[in-house]
Amino acid sequence: MSTLLSIHETAQWLKENNNYLIITHRRPDGDTLGCAGALAQGLREFGKTVYILENPEVTPRYLPFVEAYTQSDDFTADKIIAVDTATVDLFTKNALVYKDKISLCIDHHESNTNYAGLLCIDSSCGSCGEIIYNILMTLTGSISEITARNLYVALSTDTGCFSYGNTTADTLEVAAKLIKAGAPNKKLNKTLFRTKTRGRIKIEGMITSGIEFHYDGKVAIAMITREMMSLSGATEDDIDDIANLPGSVEGVGVGVTIRELSGEADCKISVRTTPPFNAHKICEIFGGGGHTTAAGASINKPINEIKAKLLEVLPGLTGIL
Amino acid sequence: MSTLLSIHETAQWLKENNNYLIITHRRPDGDTLGCAGALAQGLREFGKTVYILENPEVTPRYLPFVEAYTQSDDFTADKIIAVDTATVDLFTKNALVYKDKISLCIDHHESNTNYAGLLCIDSSCGSCGEIIYNILMTLTGSISEITARNLYVALSTDTGCFSYGNTTADTLEVAAKLIKAGAPNKKLNKTLFRTKTRGRIKIEGMITSGIEFHYDGKVAIAMITREMMSLSGATEDDIDDIANLPGSVEGVGVGVTIRELSGEADCKISVRTTPPFNAHKICEIFGGGGHTTAAGASINKPINEIKAKLLEVLPGLTGIL
Repeated sequence: MSTLLSIHETAQWLKENNNYLIITHRRPDGDTLGCAGALAQGLREFGKTVYILENPEVTPRYLPFVEAYTQSDDFTADKIIAVDTATVDLFTKNALVYKDKISLCIDHHESNTNYAGLLCIDSSCGSCGEIIYNILMTLTGSISEITARNLYVALSTDTGCFSYGNTTADTLEVAAKLIKAGAPNKKLNKTLFRTKTRGRIKIEGMITSGIEFHYDGKVAIAMITREMMSLSGATEDDIDDIANLPGSVEGVGVGVTIRELSGEADCKISVRTTPPFNAHKICEIFGGGGHTTAAGASINKPINEIKAKLLEVLPGLTGIL
Repeated sequence: MSTLLSIHETAQWLKENNNYLIITHRRPDGDTLGCAGALAQGLREFGKTVYILENPEVTPRYLPFVEAYTQSDDFTADKIIAVDTATVDLFTKNALVYKDKISLCIDHHESNTNYAGLLCIDSSCGSCGEIIYNILMTLTGSISEITARNLYVALSTDTGCFSYGNTTADTLEVAAKLIKAGAPNKKLNKTLFRTKTRGRIKIEGMITSGIEFHYDGKVAIAMITREMMSLSGATEDDIDDIANLPGSVEGVGVGVTIRELSGEADCKISVRTTPPFNAHKICEIFGGGGHTTAAGASINKPINEIKAKLLEVLPGLTGIL
């Protein structure tokens, strides 16, 4: 049984307890890491002992926002807090030991599976960072420059620098307050949104040149092969949000990115759709799933077979033929 | 002699007068057009007669925000207002007849030449739209949905959807209020920032593949030839903000875009820099100018000659060699 807490009750609980360990999700993004960094910083400033469980998948881009709080060897946690993590399926391997022991989960995903004893969830928030902001403000009445910086990373990355559909008036109001508290938005935006590595520029050129359009331009397919990754020198950070690319072309309702992986499965398919097309249903065919407008699947098949299979099943979708 | 007005005095002046004609600048962007549309809409709702002088260079992207207010044949203006226009050199041809008759200029450019009788200028604002917002709120106490939409276009386009260095806490606060007043940010962001035409995707692929790096990667040069424009089918709208592309590569301090034009001058050079490099000084060499971080020039020379000249003068700059 889980208990739903208000912002105020969550702040109260954080005040009453101590020795927190914060857990972030797999393939960690700026929201989960920025939230963890902000919560750790804010609670430490409030006198609490707080660490973040090391996330082995953190990319260099986001490391500066969590590394100061990484769990030390001699720390034993009393309370475990998961941030921005909808389900225990999103736990990293080293976090699985805690999966039945999560004291509190702070999240903004509607799909949260209520796996924690206490829940502070608001799915109207564009980013989990907005919830953390409200909790820390309730707890401490102010936000330090470092906390503001970490929270700005959470808000801005989860909303595509305030351009995605999840951006609300509240998101912008909180972001304004973070800037007033000292978040260096100019510098962070330059790093996070307005700087491309040479590897990114190269792979983007390759992907863009190779995009295929099908079904009167309603479907766009981008392919990323191992060879392209190697030729461009692009890293995981470089192709962070690349799955949005094919779906961003005018007239495209189904944007598909198929990528050859080096590990586990042979390929990964990412689908982005605009209604009436349903990304989740497309990915279900490949044993995956997700949201109606963004979904994915891992597939143990060669990249060209996946593309062929996709083109075969697409005519069954509303609006394609 | 020009007189500087406060927001309150500007609102008072707008209240006392009537029959306004609004002028926008050459190569009109979302700020000048969104401001004109918002001021026209807001003043009309306040009972004033207001038109916008037709800007022959308006692109289809921004037409919806000004077309309802285009000057009708039987309208004679009493007062002329220029918005977001720093100098009369930026007037379109059909606006030149008014160049000595501008009653009021509302602007956020530090470089404003004070050509109007009355000035309402605040260079701390990321967009001119923020000034218009404050004027209309002072005048009317509220903002309609249409005015909010037009102002959102101004704020968001001038700040690269709140990612550029000119974005302040105030910008985000005003944007939040516009969304609360009904500005459809989700829809506008999708159209203005998250949709690429096929022409844009094609030309971006061509430009990206052709970017040249010089001086240890500190200088990036992108070239856009007439042939590339024709092969890609890209329009003016498609390459709206392309000048930011070379400067967005990691390690680049001087991002240069040289473009072959079809009209007037043979080529246009756009320079984007990060300190210590000075875009204005580079463009001065070619008879142009602008801001320290963004400047441009029109040059009557073949594209390759311009590139050669540029590579010749760059070593004279601090930090290049």
